[in-house]
Amino acid sequence: MKISKNPLTQETHEIPKKLDDQASIEMFLSQNAGKKVVVVQGLGFVGAVMSLVCANAFTEEYAVIGVDLPNEETFWKIQSINEGKFPLIAEDPKIDLLFKEAKSKGNFYATYDPISYSYADIIIVDINLDVQKKASDDYALNSFDVDLTGFKNAISSIGKNCKEDVLVLVETTVPPGTCSKIVKPVLEDELKRRNLTTENLGLGHSYERVMPGPEYIDSIRSYPRVYAGIDDNSADRIKFFLETIIDTKVCNLTRLDHTNATEMAKVLENSYRATNIAFAVEWSRFAEEAGVDLYSIIDAIRVRKTHSNLMYPGVGVGGYCLTKDPLLASWARRSFFGSDVDLGMSINSVSVNDRMPSYAFKRLIDVFGSLENKKVVFLGISYRGDVGDTRFTPVEPLVNMVKNEGAIIKLHDPYVSFWEEQKCEVEKDIDRVFKDDPDLIIISTGHTIYSSKKIISKLMKLKRTSIYDTVGILDNTHLKDLGNKHILSVLGRGDI
Amino acid sequence: MKISKNPLTQETHEIPKKLDDQASIEMFLSQNAGKKVVVVQGLGFVGAVMSLVCANAFTEEYAVIGVDLPNEETFWKIQSINEGKFPLIAEDPKIDLLFKEAKSKGNFYATYDPISYSYADIIIVDINLDVQKKASDDYALNSFDVDLTGFKNAISSIGKNCKEDVLVLVETTVPPGTCSKIVKPVLEDELKRRNLTTENLGLGHSYERVMPGPEYIDSIRSYPRVYAGIDDNSADRIKFFLETIIDTKVCNLTRLDHTNATEMAKVLENSYRATNIAFAVEWSRFAEEAGVDLYSIIDAIRVRKTHSNLMYPGVGVGGYCLTKDPLLASWARRSFFGSDVDLGMSINSVSVNDRMPSYAFKRLIDVFGSLENKKVVFLGISYRGDVGDTRFTPVEPLVNMVKNEGAIIKLHDPYVSFWEEQKCEVEKDIDRVFKDDPDLIIISTGHTIYSSKKIISKLMKLKRTSIYDTVGILDNTHLKDLGNKHILSVLGRGDI
Repeated sequence: MKISKNPLTQETHEIPKKLDDQASIEMFLSQNAGKKVVVVQGLGFVGAVMSLVCANAFTEEYAVIGVDLPNEETFWKIQSINEGKFPLIAEDPKIDLLFKEAKSKGNFYATYDPISYSYADIIIVDINLDVQKKASDDYALNSFDVDLTGFKNAISSIGKNCKEDVLVLVETTVPPGTCSKIVKPVLEDELKRRNLTTENLGLGHSYERVMPGPEYIDSIRSYPRVYAGIDDNSADRIKFFLETIIDTKVCNLTRLDHTNATEMAKVLENSYRATNIAFAVEWSRFAEEAGVDLYSIIDAIRVRKTHSNLMYPGVGVGGYCLTKDPLLASWARRSFFGSDVDLGMSINSVSVNDRMPSYAFKRLIDVFGSLENKKVVFLGISYRGDVGDTRFTPVEPLVNMVKNEGAIIKLHDPYVSFWEEQKCEVEKDIDRVFKDDPDLIIISTGHTIYSSKKIISKLMKLKRTSIYDTVGILDNTHLKDLGNKHILSVLGRGDI
Repeated sequence: MKISKNPLTQETHEIPKKLDDQASIEMFLSQNAGKKVVVVQGLGFVGAVMSLVCANAFTEEYAVIGVDLPNEETFWKIQSINEGKFPLIAEDPKIDLLFKEAKSKGNFYATYDPISYSYADIIIVDINLDVQKKASDDYALNSFDVDLTGFKNAISSIGKNCKEDVLVLVETTVPPGTCSKIVKPVLEDELKRRNLTTENLGLGHSYERVMPGPEYIDSIRSYPRVYAGIDDNSADRIKFFLETIIDTKVCNLTRLDHTNATEMAKVLENSYRATNIAFAVEWSRFAEEAGVDLYSIIDAIRVRKTHSNLMYPGVGVGGYCLTKDPLLASWARRSFFGSDVDLGMSINSVSVNDRMPSYAFKRLIDVFGSLENKKVVFLGISYRGDVGDTRFTPVEPLVNMVKNEGAIIKLHDPYVSFWEEQKCEVEKDIDRVFKDDPDLIIISTGHTIYSSKKIISKLMKLKRTSIYDTVGILDNTHLKDLGNKHILSVLGRGDI
């Protein structure tokens, strides 16, 4: 008997041996007769929320089926949805609202059964496409590869079941060229094998700009979108569909003339951000050496509109996009378009950013000394402020390095109760991590509350604790309040 | 007899053998009795215009003396100013206006004589500080060095003459650390040698953000500024001075707490821009390979505020700042602050950008073939659209490469009549460069007129001419109007 465990609640779900959900799917569809059927492939950070958005479309009533694999990592999500519990902890109140609305309307069902694709008018591909990264000892990027096997299998699974005139909309961030060079031939081969025609197939790409956090839903519904089809008809159909779920009164849809272009736009967008962060990282080392405060320099420069995208340095880059998208792009350049040149700057950015936690660690040892048997508290494990998302968080390597030095660590994060990647509990009560009079507090995520009056005054009361701010959340007023005895260092600030 | 020739007018001026201008300076000052004396060191693209701004200060009446060296390259500027001709061709009508105003008030004089520093209340340093770059065959950056000898001599010349309580304001873009590690000790040494005190010396750094072009004057007077002093008193004096010449109703002054910080802000600002351009360059190669239009991708991404600084690719980066400032910074990191690490990303950006003309050339040969004996017209030699500024223009290496292939070239630029660096005339009349039915027209500068209806219709009438747009000034409408027979390629666009 295989079990899938919900990491949020520790509930377990038995994975059925006989994988056949057709009867339930048909029951669901009969209860939603007359509605267009949208099937969302993948129930992760994008797919689960995209399903909600479709089930609550503005100008159309869809029957929405979310599909994921019946394995130990994902089966619990399917069960959870059908039992009325959304499989993500959501800071955005709209998530709860839309989920309740969908459940009460009864137009959102989840399944593992690929037979669901056979009923779909529209299939949205929201599965992951990972990069296999290998790191050096200092966490610098050593090599990487992209394996499309899983992605191709997922597309095959659609092609083996779908109607010949289905509209397939790929939202997954893919290597530029994937829709035309992989998805299209795979789908067409499967249709031909089933003696179906291929000329009515709709296919295109439109990337989401989902931002987990307090505006999760609006980051899908009220955010400008870029889309393209493999032909004009596909593009028109995508536009028609997007207009039912996107609030086009507040944000524009931009059509590009090829899926290569939209696919490139997405990875370029994220590579740009990764590059700007890496840029700030490099200069933060220089600022420390020159004894100046990089944050105030960046503030002074950002007043120029042409320089408003300058970013602060920090402890590192996490999340699912910036850590891999530049690599997907460079891989595609060589593998799909035969170039013998890398996107060198973009790859280098990933490598610089991957090393950020080890810079932060090195600076810590320089200013603090040995960590052996020291009580160390981490404030924040998410990769981003005010969000509970630990995917590829840079806090993880930093925690590991500090642990390896023999420190006794405690973790705090108001948005994360269980750290899935590290398989450990996370404290939500700040007093419990402060009470032992720790030797060192590392501010490792820019959650707004960490610079709140309440927490600053708690920090001020600690007698012997050093504070290391790796995200620059403490400004000059905080530093003054806390006084020299507490502040060990702020990453990217030369003099405190 | 040494001669200095005005490259704009070809007028010649004899450089006096006996260099003594004290009588004229004193005459000028007696005519401006009671006014504070501002001496501007350097009459280049910044100093000449800064002198005008000071002579037309908002809330104070200054007597302004502009100083440059009595050598062949610069002596003509001194004569030109004193004869009532401003030494720059100015697209900004305010330049003429302010110059006439200063001449009629009689509060602007130019000289070569360092004795002028002895009368100064305020000395503004606007001299050049160059980087010595060595390039590889493909124009990639090979090595570079910074020689401070000339800069130190200029500062010594101030210290040998100035009052002990003068305020010295460095505006030159310098390696971070220069004011505290070079300027301050040099000035203090000279004062001590003259048995003067050093404690009343005012010294600081505030960088200009001058943009030659139609808003030249406003880019000084109405643009936010960053400043710092070597001590609080210096910073206060700088603030007081800047408030007399800057329109603080429309733009803020930001004080940073050390000259290291303002100096770093300036080179960081320009390195950021250089990096963003290099980023676009790298992706434009990929876009060409993948057959997509990078310009439309960038337009689609720029709608995000967090990505609004994304830049277009192009034929290359020119001008005095972006081509060297990242190198100044990296040099300072090693030379002033003992780091054993470069600012690798910033240096690489310069190298990528320096290679842009050779990418453009390579693409040209790929799509056009041999240039031998072909009639080739360049539209634009400035490094920037709507400006007549050829300093380090990327068009120069492109012109050289095309010439070396045996092409017969003609140059057009509405803003440049004589190309100083290449010592050749430039045509202003577009009909004269179009009339020979050229084989190839290379749009090499983004002057707005090149995409005007008038010029597009002239281009449409050319029968056998190919057009190569290296700056992406032609949009889809233009491309449609011009038709396939004319458009050879647009750099950064895969398919036309």
